[in-house]
Amino acid sequence: MTVDFCDYFWGEKNNGFDILYHNMKHGLIANKDLSDFLRERTNIEETCSKLLAKLAKQTSSSSNTGTFNPLWQLLRLSIEKLTTIHIQMVHKVCELVKDVTKYTDELQKKHKNVKEEQSGTLDAVQAIQSTTLALQKAKDIYVQKGGELDKLRKDNASAKDIEKAEIKLKKAQDDYKVLVDKYSNVKEEFEKKMNTACKIFQEVEQSHLKQMKDFLNVYTELIESNHEEIGKVHVEFKKTMFRNDCG
Amino acid sequence: MTVDFCDYFWGEKNNGFDILYHNMKHGLIANKDLSDFLRERTNIEETCSKLLAKLAKQTSSSSNTGTFNPLWQLLRLSIEKLTTIHIQMVHKVCELVKDVTKYTDELQKKHKNVKEEQSGTLDAVQAIQSTTLALQKAKDIYVQKGGELDKLRKDNASAKDIEKAEIKLKKAQDDYKVLVDKYSNVKEEFEKKMNTACKIFQEVEQSHLKQMKDFLNVYTELIESNHEEIGKVHVEFKKTMFRNDCG
Repeated sequence: MTVDFCDYFWGEKNNGFDILYHNMKHGLIANKDLSDFLRERTNIEETCSKLLAKLAKQTSSSSNTGTFNPLWQLLRLSIEKLTTIHIQMVHKVCELVKDVTKYTDELQKKHKNVKEEQSGTLDAVQAIQSTTLALQKAKDIYVQKGGELDKLRKDNASAKDIEKAEIKLKKAQDDYKVLVDKYSNVKEEFEKKMNTACKIFQEVEQSHLKQMKDFLNVYTELIESNHEEIGKVHVEFKKTMFRNDCG
Repeated sequence: MTVDFCDYFWGEKNNGFDILYHNMKHGLIANKDLSDFLRERTNIEETCSKLLAKLAKQTSSSSNTGTFNPLWQLLRLSIEKLTTIHIQMVHKVCELVKDVTKYTDELQKKHKNVKEEQSGTLDAVQAIQSTTLALQKAKDIYVQKGGELDKLRKDNASAKDIEKAEIKLKKAQDDYKVLVDKYSNVKEEFEKKMNTACKIFQEVEQSHLKQMKDFLNVYTELIESNHEEIGKVHVEFKKTMFRNDCG
């Protein structure tokens, strides 16, 4: 893994936590989609198997007399073997679906834990977002009050008005200072919490992708061994057909 | 071909022609069963293809966002390729069904010709069957008349009765002799015609089995190349999955 979440997920307007949280939730959707995919795959295998069984039955009732009969027996036997292989595939993929579904539950629990553990981070995110806004507002007021004072002085306003404006500017400056300090503290807390959060989300993501990849590997192996079994039936059919050569 | 029809198909009660004729007709049934079998095989491939297309669609709508997305793309691509391969198989087996059906027509014409050409053989068969029966009957009557004459002599019957019985025996002997000659001629004709018939039925049978075997060979090759194509898709999927390793 070349990416370090800590280097990437602070996000625009400090919204990285939200992105990471939703990314984690997408993992659950992908997991459910995978079990749907595998379930549909077993349906296909099951349909195939049923249709092949029907064909085998049709073949066994085909011209029981006649010189072509030995080849009908061969065809029937071959189709029956394919039926069995497809049924075995159904059972194997069903087992995989069970594992995937079991993992769905585990993943939901894990996400729930992360959500609870990370409630403090969410507070820190909200704090930095609101403090950033307040800081910007305080800065704007400070600049505005400074501008108002400058204007009064330029316009040779009364000493009383200038004094009033000076008091307002002083207050704006104090408010601004308080928020700068607050922002500094909030930012420190936010960065500390986000560092931990990034690490946790990265850990969750990595182990999730590894698990999903493992499921796909099992699926690929099932497909491969199933394919191999089918190939053996074809080869055997061909061999026996040539051995029983009656052409 | 180690069997020579001429050595086997004279049949009980000279009924070999009937056996050979029905065997030829079974060829037509086997041929029709084969086209039914292949048609059902295309139905299975078509159903498979439709179900896979549905699965590919389901896969393409699966979690478009999220880190598992690249693997969904891979799965979808792989399933789409399988869909295409099954559709190609449908087309190829359909072509084969056309050939088999075309051959059905040819075979029907051939059988019609054989039936017409072999009407003389059928006459010869009927002739030998009826002559055999008549010969047996004439022999029985001859033996019976001989027995009757012996009994009259033993019982010291009247000369008139013995003379009458002698005339009856003579007539039975003459009838018997005529049928022995007739049987000899009929048998010669039957054997000549059956020899030709056996050769023709053997030729029809051999070329029919060769044709049927050729159809099965084409079918086997289609199944094999189809299986190979599917295998390539699996290998490619596995390769690409490991290249895009994100586990």
